[in-house]
Amino acid sequence: MNILEKPLSSEWIYNGRIIRLRRDTALLPNGATATREVIEHNGGVCVAALTAQNELLFVKQFRYPYMEIVTEIPAGKRDSTKEDPLACGMRELREETGATADRWLPLGKLYPSPGYCGEVIWMYAATGLHFGEQQLDEDEFLNVEKIPLEQAVNMILSGEIIDAKTQAAVLKVKLLCDRGEL
Amino acid sequence: MNILEKPLSSEWIYNGRIIRLRRDTALLPNGATATREVIEHNGGVCVAALTAQNELLFVKQFRYPYMEIVTEIPAGKRDSTKEDPLACGMRELREETGATADRWLPLGKLYPSPGYCGEVIWMYAATGLHFGEQQLDEDEFLNVEKIPLEQAVNMILSGEIIDAKTQAAVLKVKLLCDRGEL
Repeated sequence: MNILEKPLSSEWIYNGRIIRLRRDTALLPNGATATREVIEHNGGVCVAALTAQNELLFVKQFRYPYMEIVTEIPAGKRDSTKEDPLACGMRELREETGATADRWLPLGKLYPSPGYCGEVIWMYAATGLHFGEQQLDEDEFLNVEKIPLEQAVNMILSGEIIDAKTQAAVLKVKLLCDRGEL
Repeated sequence: MNILEKPLSSEWIYNGRIIRLRRDTALLPNGATATREVIEHNGGVCVAALTAQNELLFVKQFRYPYMEIVTEIPAGKRDSTKEDPLACGMRELREETGATADRWLPLGKLYPSPGYCGEVIWMYAATGLHFGEQQLDEDEFLNVEKIPLEQAVNMILSGEIIDAKTQAAVLKVKLLCDRGEL
């Protein structure tokens, strides 16, 4: 079955600090037209940083849309749609946790909510960690925590860790460790 | 460290078909104020439906924000913020794949992109499947596929399956099966 859609026209709704919103009219496979709301975003990077003691670094951060403190692996936005994801991951890990890493392994990409959002999140595992000073942005407030990998996996299975990129990247690290590939 | 933020004021930017966008001014822990862009959404549900032959049901769907066909587990939006997630999951599985299930296991929640988006995705595993007719919405076009669980896990590890909820739910199903809990 043909399932492709074609853009017919675009209307810009909002051009913000983090997101841009447009509303398109699209041609559907059956010849009808439909409205498609699209969030644009520069894309982000997250890092599952594993210590020699098999602990992962986490940040606890107030997340305004949920009015909750959310436990996540270190992550951040790209400065532009052109920034190299690995360079962004290295910067965010250093700024949020003070850590640098000797080894970086790509864990693939993540589409957070593909129905209406075009954000891409690149995931990395980082090992061979060295610790320095946190360098937080002026409007960034977070606490860093180390959690043993097995405990983090259990916190994901029990529903205690809810963030999408954290669930995906940590479970990938767990399976790669089990297979001897990390 | 205090990391809480307080809403000071809200401005509605867009009230759309699938998403709503507002821009708030928030009080930061250091006494400064900042702008917070927030996407609101009714929330969604996804279902990792496992056959007696250990295959998972997938849908391949054109995702407009990426202009790509994306491989995902069956999923859909809640009709309202009040709809019971399990009822929504049952409906979406039946509509997209024609399947009903004897057993439903909650796999926890997912926050797809907590920096700016308030969407919650509830995840379920469904087993004891019975197959009937697909009942797609008028503007919904997708192809259904069965993929063995182990192959799906490998497709996630290799970066071939990119959707966030699919990565999280399928890797949870894999670990629960390994532990004899599913």
